[in-house]
Parts: sequence; C-alpha cells; structure tokens
Amino acid sequence: MSERVVLAYSGGLDTSVAIPYLAERTGAEVIAVAVDVGQGGEDMEVIRRRALDCGAVESEVVDARDEFAADYCLPAIRANALYMNRYPLVSALSRPLIVTHLVAAARRHGGTIVSHGCTGKGNDQVRFEVGLHALAPDLTVVAPARDFAWTRDKAIAFAEEKGLPIDVTARSPYSVDQNLWGRAVETGFLEDIWTAPVEDLYAYTEDPAEQRDADELVLTFDAGVPVAIDGETVTPYEAVRELNRRAGAQGVGRLDMVEDRLVGIKSREVYEAPGALALITAHQELEAVTVERDLARFKRGVEQRWGELVYDGLWFSPLKRSLDAFIDDAQRHVSGEVRLTLHGGRAVVTGRRSEASLYDFGLATYDTGDTFDQTLAKGFVQLWGLPSTMAAARDARWEGVRS
Amino acid sequence: MSERVVLAYSGGLDTSVAIPYLAERTGAEVIAVAVDVGQGGEDMEVIRRRALDCGAVESEVVDARDEFAADYCLPAIRANALYMNRYPLVSALSRPLIVTHLVAAARRHGGTIVSHGCTGKGNDQVRFEVGLHALAPDLTVVAPARDFAWTRDKAIAFAEEKGLPIDVTARSPYSVDQNLWGRAVETGFLEDIWTAPVEDLYAYTEDPAEQRDADELVLTFDAGVPVAIDGETVTPYEAVRELNRRAGAQGVGRLDMVEDRLVGIKSREVYEAPGALALITAHQELEAVTVERDLARFKRGVEQRWGELVYDGLWFSPLKRSLDAFIDDAQRHVSGEVRLTLHGGRAVVTGRRSEASLYDFGLATYDTGDTFDQTLAKGFVQLWGLPSTMAAARDARWEGVRS
Amino acid sequence: MSERVVLAYSGGLDTSVAIPYLAERTGAEVIAVAVDVGQGGEDMEVIRRRALDCGAVESEVVDARDEFAADYCLPAIRANALYMNRYPLVSALSRPLIVTHLVAAARRHGGTIVSHGCTGKGNDQVRFEVGLHALAPDLTVVAPARDFAWTRDKAIAFAEEKGLPIDVTARSPYSVDQNLWGRAVETGFLEDIWTAPVEDLYAYTEDPAEQRDADELVLTFDAGVPVAIDGETVTPYEAVRELNRRAGAQGVGRLDMVEDRLVGIKSREVYEAPGALALITAHQELEAVTVERDLARFKRGVEQRWGELVYDGLWFSPLKRSLDAFIDDAQRHVSGEVRLTLHGGRAVVTGRRSEASLYDFGLATYDTGDTFDQTLAKGFVQLWGLPSTMAAARDARWEGVRS
Amino acid sequence: MSERVVLAYSGGLDTSVAIPYLAERTGAEVIAVAVDVGQGGEDMEVIRRRALDCGAVESEVVDARDEFAADYCLPAIRANALYMNRYPLVSALSRPLIVTHLVAAARRHGGTIVSHGCTGKGNDQVRFEVGLHALAPDLTVVAPARDFAWTRDKAIAFAEEKGLPIDVTARSPYSVDQNLWGRAVETGFLEDIWTAPVEDLYAYTEDPAEQRDADELVLTFDAGVPVAIDGETVTPYEAVRELNRRAGAQGVGRLDMVEDRLVGIKSREVYEAPGALALITAHQELEAVTVERDLARFKRGVEQRWGELVYDGLWFSPLKRSLDAFIDDAQRHVSGEVRLTLHGGRAVVTGRRSEASLYDFGLATYDTGDTFDQTLAKGFVQLWGLPSTMAAARDARWEGVRS
Repeated sequence: MSERVVLAYSGGLDTSVAIPYLAERTGAEVIAVAVDVGQGGEDMEVIRRRALDCGAVESEVVDARDEFAADYCLPAIRANALYMNRYPLVSALSRPLIVTHLVAAARRHGGTIVSHGCTGKGNDQVRFEVGLHALAPDLTVVAPARDFAWTRDKAIAFAEEKGLPIDVTARSPYSVDQNLWGRAVETGFLEDIWTAPVEDLYAYTEDPAEQRDADELVLTFDAGVPVAIDGETVTPYEAVRELNRRAGAQGVGRLDMVEDRLVGIKSREVYEAPGALALITAHQELEAVTVERDLARFKRGVEQRWGELVYDGLWFSPLKRSLDAFIDDAQRHVSGEVRLTLHGGRAVVTGRRSEASLYDFGLATYDTGDTFDQTLAKGFVQLWGLPSTMAAARDARWEGVRS
Repeated sequence: MSERVVLAYSGGLDTSVAIPYLAERTGAEVIAVAVDVGQGGEDMEVIRRRALDCGAVESEVVDARDEFAADYCLPAIRANALYMNRYPLVSALSRPLIVTHLVAAARRHGGTIVSHGCTGKGNDQVRFEVGLHALAPDLTVVAPARDFAWTRDKAIAFAEEKGLPIDVTARSPYSVDQNLWGRAVETGFLEDIWTAPVEDLYAYTEDPAEQRDADELVLTFDAGVPVAIDGETVTPYEAVRELNRRAGAQGVGRLDMVEDRLVGIKSREVYEAPGALALITAHQELEAVTVERDLARFKRGVEQRWGELVYDGLWFSPLKRSLDAFIDDAQRHVSGEVRLTLHGGRAVVTGRRSEASLYDFGLATYDTGDTFDQTLAKGFVQLWGLPSTMAAARDARWEGVRS
Repeated sequence: MSERVVLAYSGGLDTSVAIPYLAERTGAEVIAVAVDVGQGGEDMEVIRRRALDCGAVESEVVDARDEFAADYCLPAIRANALYMNRYPLVSALSRPLIVTHLVAAARRHGGTIVSHGCTGKGNDQVRFEVGLHALAPDLTVVAPARDFAWTRDKAIAFAEEKGLPIDVTARSPYSVDQNLWGRAVETGFLEDIWTAPVEDLYAYTEDPAEQRDADELVLTFDAGVPVAIDGETVTPYEAVRELNRRAGAQGVGRLDMVEDRLVGIKSREVYEAPGALALITAHQELEAVTVERDLARFKRGVEQRWGELVYDGLWFSPLKRSLDAFIDDAQRHVSGEVRLTLHGGRAVVTGRRSEASLYDFGLATYDTGDTFDQTLAKGFVQLWGLPSTMAAARDARWEGVRS
Repeated sequence: MSERVVLAYSGGLDTSVAIPYLAERTGAEVIAVAVDVGQGGEDMEVIRRRALDCGAVESEVVDARDEFAADYCLPAIRANALYMNRYPLVSALSRPLIVTHLVAAARRHGGTIVSHGCTGKGNDQVRFEVGLHALAPDLTVVAPARDFAWTRDKAIAFAEEKGLPIDVTARSPYSVDQNLWGRAVETGFLEDIWTAPVEDLYAYTEDPAEQRDADELVLTFDAGVPVAIDGETVTPYEAVRELNRRAGAQGVGRLDMVEDRLVGIKSREVYEAPGALALITAHQELEAVTVERDLARFKRGVEQRWGELVYDGLWFSPLKRSLDAFIDDAQRHVSGEVRLTLHGGRAVVTGRRSEASLYDFGLATYDTGDTFDQTLAKGFVQLWGLPSTMAAARDARWEGVRS
C-alpha cells in the first residue's frame, strides 16, 4: 500500500493544484482535509468535491466552528490577546486547531505525511509545523511552496497542463486568510507601506465613515466568557458571529499595520476583526472593574507574552499552558455586564456593572456617603515616596562629593 | 519675619479660599503660584490678581507651556505612555512640573511650607508630595483638604464670611483638571459607572458622531519627537496644540474608564486627549517600522512600567530616570513620516515612510524582487519548535509512566 | 461583657508585658495565642502558662508545624522564592499563617481586636495587618509598639512595676525571629554595615570553615515537592527539618545582606536557612532538567514577583493566587532525583535524574549516538539573527544619511 | 588573485587541520587569526607559527585581553550577568569580541569568507554568525564542522595524511573553552547527568574542600566598575585576573549545571569562573546598598534579559544596546567598597561602605538615634493593603452570590 499524505485543503487554486502535484512528487495518495473555522465563502461541500475532482483519494470537511470559538477565540478574549498591542491573532489562532484535525485525519487514514500550502517566509509554516511536531512527531511535513519552490505560476501551468477543474483566471491581487475571528489581507499594492488601503479590500466591515445610526448592546460575561447579548444566552460561536455582524455593520475593527513576523522580517498587514475587537474592548473594561490592581498590572505582561507565543506558533508549548493557568485564575471574577456602543468605526463602553465589582461607590465618591479615611493618606504618601526621597537626597549629596 | 507658604494656585474656588484660610491656620504669609500648563480658560493675569485680592502677599504666574510640552509631553510620546493601556496621563504629567516651580518660588521668596489643594483620596497629593520631598526635603507640605478636613462647603462658608471676591455659586457638578496634554473629568453622576457620559462633559473634542469631512495630515518625527506637521516645522508645544485642535475637531481622543488609583481604590474617569492620542498613535506606528522586534517587545514592558511610575507619582524616581535612558536609546531611529487620517473619532495611520525603516520590500514582497531565501526556513522552524516538540514528547511519555 | 483582644504571643519580654499593658490600655480581656511554626526554643506549654501568669484570660498554643511546612514552605520551594535573589523569606512566610490562627482564635473567643508586637518600621506589621484586613475586615488591629509608642524600656519598667514573671535582664543585643524555614537576626552592632557578623550570631548552622567530612544525600521530588530523602519518604515538615539538620551541620545557609524593606528603608539582616537553601538549590536544578526553556525563562520573572509579594505582605492578594496557579502548572513535571553534596557551607548538586527529563543524551552528545541534525542549524542561525542583521545594516545606512 | 578566508584560529587540532582543509575545499588562501582573550595555555607566538606551518598564508595574533576585560567583562559585572541565574557567560562574552577582530582582519587582508570551528548544535555558531552578519553582511561564513560534516575523526585522518605538525594523540575527553572570564568544560562522561564531576576537570580553581586559611580583600567600585583591590588601583584586566587567582586559590567559582542551549536542547556544563563570581557577588551587594528599591527590582528583569541576549548570540542587537543604556544609568551611584572573604569555595561579603549609600543608620536603627516616624506606618499599611482587602471582601461576597 502506498503512503498517504494529509493535505490542509482550502479549496483555492494553490492547495487544489497541490493535490496532483503532491501525488506526483511524493508518490503518495492525497487525503484532503478542509476545516471550517467560520471562513465563510464557498460551500464546504463544493470544496470537498473539488478535492476529489483534483485527484484526492479521500476528502473531508470538518465543521470546527464551535470548537474554534470555544477553545481558541475565548482564550484570546480572556487574554485580551493583541499582538503588538493591536492585532487580535486571526490566522495564528486557527492554525493549531487545523493541526489537531490534520493529525486526527492522519491517524484515521493511515497518513504518514502532512502537507500545507504555506510559504517559507510567513508565520503560518511555523504554526503548522511546530504544532505538528508537538502533537505527532512521527509525521513528516511537506510544504511544497517552500520545500519544492513551488510557485503560483508553476501551479497555474500545472493546472492547465493537467486540465484541473480550477479557475486559474480569477486571481486576487491580495493574499487573504479569514475565519470566524477575523480577516487578514496582505501583498499586492499594500507592500508599499506609504499607500493607504482602499475600500474594496474589506469584506467583514462596512465603511466606518458612512452615516448611520449607532447600535448599542449589553454584553454579559461569566468568568471572562461572553455568555449573553442583550440578555439572550449565546454560545461562544454565536457571540463572535453576532458581534462580527453588528460591529462590522458599524465599521468597527479595521487595522492597517506594519508587523514583526517571526521569521525576522517586517510585513504590512490589513485586518478586519469586528467581533474580536468589540469583545476584547468590553472584556478589558469589565476587568478594569473586577480585577485587583496588582493582578491587572501583572496580567498585562502575561497578555503580551501570550500573544507573542501564539503569534510565534507556540500554542502547544509548556509556557502557553502555564500562562493559561494564570489567566484562568485571574478570570474567576470577571463576570458582569458591559454596555457597548458601536458606531462610526468605534466600539465604546458606556456602562459596566458587576456583582463582583471592586469599584466601591462609598470609597470613590466625593459626595455624601464618602467612607474613605483621608487621614491615612499622609502616612501612605510619606512612606510610598521614601525611597525616592532618600535617593534624591543621596544624589544631591553625591554631586557635592564628586564636584 | 513670619513664615511663608507657597500655594499651588489654580484661580478656582478652593485654592482662592485656601489663601486666607492658610494664613489664618498657619500664621504664615501666602505666596500664590499659578503655573500655565496650557489649561486655557481664564486669563492668567486675572488669576494672578485674584490671589492678591484674596490676601496673598505675592502672586506669580509661570508660563510653563513650552517646558511642559518639551520635557513632560514629549517623553510621554516616546514612551507611548498609556496607563492601563489607555489613559495618556494628563494630570500625572503636569504635577512634577508644577512641583519644580513651587520649589523655585519657595527658594525665591523664602518659603518654608508648600501647600496644594488635593484631597487625601486622589493621586495628585502623592504626585505633589513625593516630588516635593525629592526636590526639597526641607520644605513642609500642607494639604488643607486632607490635613485639616477642609471641605468645599466649609470653603464656601468661609468665602462668604470673609467677603472674598469669588463666585461661589458657579459650581460645576464635576471635578475637572485640564492642561495641554488633555482634560480629565470625574465625580458627579459619573460615579455611577453604569451611566454613560453626556455630550456636555466635553470641551476639547467635538461629537465624533457628527457628520463632517475627514482631515488628513503628515507628521514628521525625528528620534521619536514630532518636528513637523504637513512639512511645517513645529515646536513640541505647537505640535500638541495643533493636534489638539485638528484631532479634537474630529472627535478623536475621548475615554471613559474605570481606573486603578494609587491609593488603592477604583474610580471612574472621563478623559479627552485628542492631541496626545493622535501623536501616540502615529508614534507607535513609526516605531513598528523602525524599531527591531526584540527591542519593540521589551519596550512594551518598559512603557507600561514608565506609565505606572508617572501615574504613581514617581516622576523623580531613579527607576524613571533609568527607563528614560532605555527609551532615549530606543528612539534613535524613530524618524520619518506618518500619514494620519482624523475622522469620526478615529485617528488612523494610512501611510508611513522612513529612511531608517526596517521594512524591506525585497524581503517582504511575494512578487518579483523577492530576496528572501525560503530554504532557510525549514531549519529555523525545526529548531524554533524543538523545545516544544521535546516537551510534548516528554508529556506523552510521562502520562504513560504515571498511568 | 468586656471586649476581647487576641494577641500574637511569642513568650518573650515584649509580648508578655503587652498582656497587662493591653488590658490596661484597652480595657479588654487578653487572649494569648502562640503559634508553633517550628521556632524551637522554649517548651510551648511553658510559654502558654506564662501568658496566663501575665494576666491573659485565655492562652492557647497552636501546633502549626506541619501546616507551615506544607502550605507555606512548599510553595516557596516551588517558587524558588529568594527575595533580592537571596533571602528565602523566613519571617515573611510565617506571618500569614499566624494571621489565620489569630482570626480563628478571635472567632472562637469572641475577640474584636487583634494585637501584635511589631514596630512601625518593619515589614511584619504590614504582613500581619494586610492579612488581617483581608481575612477579617471587621477586626480592629492594635500594635502597641507603633500605635502607643510602647518601647522596650517602658516595657521593662512596666514589668518591674507590675512584678511580672519575666526575666527582664536576659536581653539579647539582637532582634531574632526564627521558624522552621530559617532564622533572622538584626539590630545591635549589625547596624554598622561595614562590620562583619560574628560566630555567636548563629544557631541553625555550624561554622562552615570547620574541618569535617562531606555529607551527601539524594532528594526525591514529586511535582516540585520533596517527598523522600535517601529513599525514605518524608513529610514536608520532616524534609525541611532534616535538611536544616544536615545542611546546618555543614554550615550551609548563612546570609549577610542589606535588604530593601517595604516601608522604604534599607536594613541589614543576617539569616540562616540551611534547609531552605539546600532544598531550593536542589529544586532549581531539577527544574533545569525538566522544565522547558521558555517556561523556565518566564518563571524566573514570576518567581521574583512572587517573592516580592510575599515579602511585601501580600500573601492573600489576588496576584499571589494567580501566580500560584502558574507555578502549579509549571511544576507538573518537576519530578525526579537530585544528588546533593553538603560541605563547608556549600550545597552542591552533583547529579540529577528524572523520568520527566528533557535532557536528551542523543541530541546532546558529541559522541556516537548523536541524533541532532546539524544541517538545520544554518537556516536557524540566519533567521534568528535576521532582525539584528537588518538593524545593523540600517544603522550603518542611517549614519551615512545623518552625516 | 584567489579568494581569502579568515579563520578564527585556536591553535588546537580542529582549527589547525581546518587550514589545509579549507584551502582545499574552497580554493581560497587561509589567514589565521588567533585572539588572546586571556585563555592562557600555549604561547601565542607558538600558535601563530603553527598556523603558518599548517599552510596559512598569513597568521596573526591579536592581544585583546584588556579590550575583553574592559568592554565585555565589565558590562557583565554591571549587569550581574548570570544566565539561568548561575552561569556568568564565559564563552558567550568572548565570541562578539573575536568577531570584531575577524572582521578587521578580513578588511585588512581582503578576506571575503570567514570561518570558525563550531559545530551545528552549539551556541557559539550563533554568536559568531549573528555577529558577523551584523558587522559585515557582505562576508560569507563557512563552518566546516557543520556545513561539511567535518568531524574530528576525519580531521585526524586528514592531518596524518597531510603530515601536519599537530599532535593528534593528546586528545582530551572533554571539550574545553577558556578565557579571562572563566572556563567551560563539556562532553565526555559529563554527558551522563547523574555522574558527578571529578577533580581533574578543573584548572582555574583549587579543591574547595582542602583545608587552607581564608583570604580577605577589599574591592573598590566606581560606577559599577572595580577600580581597586585592597586600595591598589587596578585595570579591569588586572581586577579579573587577580580575582581569578585569589578566588580560584580558595576554590571559589565552580558550577555544574544542565543548561538550555539556544538551539533548543539541554546540555550539561561544568564551569569555573572564580573572578567573575567573586566580582559579581561583591557588585550585587554594593548595589543592594546604593540602588533604590524599585530600580533594583526592575533591574533584575533587565539583567535576566541581558544575559539571555548575550547567551543567545545577540550582543550586537538593538535591544542589547538599549538595555546597556538602562544599566549605565543605573550604575551611576554604585561606588564604594566591599569587603570580601574568600574561603572554602565561598565568596562572602562581610562589609560594605559607600558615600553614595542609601542605607541610613538613623532610619534603620532600633537604638538611640532612631529618626523614623512610626506614626506614618499605620496609614501606609492600610492603603498598601486596601486593594487586597477589597478583593478579599469581594471574594467572600461573591462566594455568597454564587452559592
């Protein structure tokens, strides 16, 4: 029996042509696995059949939308995960999920090789392969674009030569990756970083500059997890999808940035992540109300590291897991409601309330009902500043000594 | 000769009434010092005379606008200083500057006491007093509101009794502090954190929801310092003032947040900082282009700590100074231009260019001209993931041992 | 019925005299609670009776030795807790434990006040009171030394006047605190920081310079917890006690340092912690073998913060708890054996082995059996250094532009 | 004219044989550059001639001992650089220095290739090559052991075949690297991590267990730099050399550890660094006396990152430079004297004094002369603990809500 290669299949030109190419190049049977992470677009059944038409011996579609929302997007909300303080990790979150399904398919079908369509200068190759090595060190990985210098031009020529059922003409000038958590656009004219994006780059968000009425909603969180919108219980998947719809309709969630890739280069990326950014904005503010100051300060460093690890392809690393343990503990009181106004590209919190609130009206108010004992402050201020005071006195003395 | 107390004077009810009150309570002569940090509002000369009318033996106005911009706002830009990732440190930046002028006035006028109008539950008492102890440990500090339980009601009664030239009726329901860098509003109905702010809270920004045309400008930075707007050279003061005007006109820079005070309580604050947020947004993106990845990652932690220190009243601390040395070094290549679109409450970077850029088109492009050697990636990915891979294998083995 | 004050009772002069003094000063009945945290010295029953003789209405001894070892010392081992990289937190660990027993006693006996003997310039007042406020915000705290300026001289005069059964002559020139985890000595001639300690300061350790034979032992850890010595199962209490004995006999564990107190001053401290330092040394090395690199690097920052929090009296803080969650997760594979040689003041690891080891002989060896694929390294090195390489090229280019 | 390859030459078997091998393999002329970083051993002139005898067209010796001490060891002292809290970066410090001299030699002699003897599984290849790419991106790097799978067995056969003037029989079972800052030993039986080192591994240190008299010295630092020993002015080179001698004679500075290599594996290393560890010990304690608490706490994180960067081959990185700026600033008051006792493998500080001291006898003493105002403490303690107190109250309330 011949070897079998499990291919991460998107339905697009590159991975479609990769089916016969991999078969020819490796002598292995190709099993196509398409994972639905909420990317929308073509019907998944159409995609599944296309793989067979291109020569796959098996073709599977995995509906991983709920799993993606619950096990990948929710942790990102709880971590307020924004790489470089801005990017909510769209592609970086889906790769480890896809890896688990590639491994499962390899086990089911006796695959010994796994293949993906990533190039050698992007982040996704790292995310796929580090994940694959961690979960299934026995599997070999082949990345035709990188390992065989397989280019799009070669793919088109190959498709035409083999008569593959692929439309090779409808080529987008951009490279796009999208899923439930957001949408990433790169390449094309965006590679000139002085040039502004144009409106037709966007698919998840309306033009924020258009005139329209504001939308307002109340989000309920339980231990850092969004559980209801306007009082209606939602699953994680529904929460993200609904926020994508409502925040996207208001033009919320566009990003245009120069980004530090793991492979050491800077690249220019345009993102849309309306639901992600609206949810994280609301979550951050609920944390401001329910998380104690020192914990909140330390958590910011944890959040940054979490985002770097996930961006850098280390989802399955020991550090990621231990940071998750920290975050889980820190979320235990992040429960309550946040009122969010979505309008003109902005997601703004205008109210927050929680039974686990640490905001104490009596201590905070300057009005009747003030319970804060101001006489305590004098001693606090003195001792709080003592190290600085002593250092300043030393500095003055020392300058005298030295001069 | 009697003792002299130097009072940080704002011209408002509380510090005006404090003049005769301090004189009575301490037996000292009162010297009023009003520092212009770009707060606008009343004419500074009117304020100066009012202090004399209230009984001050000397009254001085210090025009510190350029100094404030150059020595306090610029470092905040270079540090991308946002407390809790959001608040650009409006009041926290002005206090140490005011402290230096209070000390200078005390030296000039033979003052032995310094006084300020802060309460015992806010941050500003700490900022004033830690600064004063550091710069002038010999001076005594008196804070009537805190140390003598001097309240606004007592102040009003005292003003009426003494016939002070103060309008005690025009009382704002809010407590406001403003300067060149922004404006802070608190208390009043905002103490109910579920209630949204209302439009008339705002003075530096127009309603972002109003329909108007976008504004676009090009900001030039030199080593992290904004030096020109649309090609016109500007001083730091002009840069912030102009951005306040143009970003404020587009509704940019409003914040509504629950914040962790140094004294240990959470408070609700509404801010406007159009210039600050526009400048920091542009600066962050220019850093994304010109600062190397590891330096950028570490700098995020430095920025957070810098913001905490300044918020916490430790401007004159040794750690603040050493962090400044780090930041100075990290800014040496943050030079270039950023195109910024201001519209509908958003400040969005749409282009960036720099002779010190680390963005390399040849390495980044997927088109003709690609110079990135993809064959290097395979080895990189393997070794990058090796610790995780080994840990995953160990984990699997260990579960076997344990079960 | 009169109020009742629960006093943290040590049996020494200060807290003995505090019994009648507190009764007189507060009009309350005094309940003495002595907690055995392995401090050794006098018989606890003698101490218990002394409190009654001094006028306590109730006197209790709590044997908390096992609890102290299991719930306070073990977390310190797992955190490799060394304040300022050196001090294993002797007193800081016992205070929160004592607090829990003071609160329990107050609940049992209807106490409304809690009292301790700490001064206002040390760390322990903070540890006691922050803990008490956290666990029992309804209880009032009284610290006679601080709140009533109650000094040792006054205490001696008071004791003589009242004829208390206390030997006021046997006064140590030092202030000593000791427990299972170690021993702290301060004050006296040690306040001159140029003067070296003398041999008779020490009680837990022999002179390391004395000639004696080395001692060698094998420590077994399970998930970061020492569970056996030389193959004999031990409880946590036994582990620390036995290492105190064996490492102390070899002069291991002396420290002489200038330390940053929470109240803002520097103080000079001499410590002995033979068991603590031997256990942490062994634990660190087992982590070196079993913990993945990135996790180990991040954990060092967590360890530092954990030590600062505990030192600073924040045992019961939310951040401490979330850091514990991180550490717990990071300890899951810290199992195995460490061979430790104790000799001449040194505790040196000479061997380590673990079924959860990440040390891979095949990858590490330069001999036959090498499984490391060196061809991967070239790509790794290139991409690893790419950001630095690009920055160096930019720097050179930029200098050209600038000059 | 033929190409020229500049070889980092040690005088040992591997790099000697590499001379004719490189010439044969690349067709280039070989220029040998031996850099004296205080490694001792053979006379440098003998080494220089051996390269010529092996076929080098040019052979140079660079005496870089003072440069190494001043520009590489001193920064490590000021950074208290201990990788994994233990290893003082022996080899990691010398590599960037050697790189600068290889580049200089390449420029002098028209070299276009640089070569080193490192394998593909160690750290040194990274240190050499990242440095070379940063300083001279135009030079090609060749590492025969890694790139041509050139092994020791092949080298010996080649040497015999060519009749090279090399003694191929005197083969050490260990791999050793040594310089002024210390000595590293690996491989051989040490690859079994359960086996203890043996005495004959060591060359820089005497057996600490041997009976001898203690040595005591006073070290003077100026801004973090050791400038005198026992009152005698010393250069940096003399300081390290003298401490190597005196601390080494007392058995100070041995380390035996499992270490995380950059290439992702764990290795077992034995080090001797008597001078390095004695100097860092003294420096740390002088910092404890002269550096303010918050700065000291933050600097610990900076030190760790500095050590990781240097270990990881990123000496010439932008982050390293910015961390140096931080450290430079933090060292400005680290001046004074430290008394150090060297004995039985221990380097112990027994006294410290400084005109820049922040230790204040008046504030620290519990005796006559106490100037600390204890009444300030009550307010400090209350507000310091307020966030924890409020969180504890919330936690209790929340549990009620939940149950």
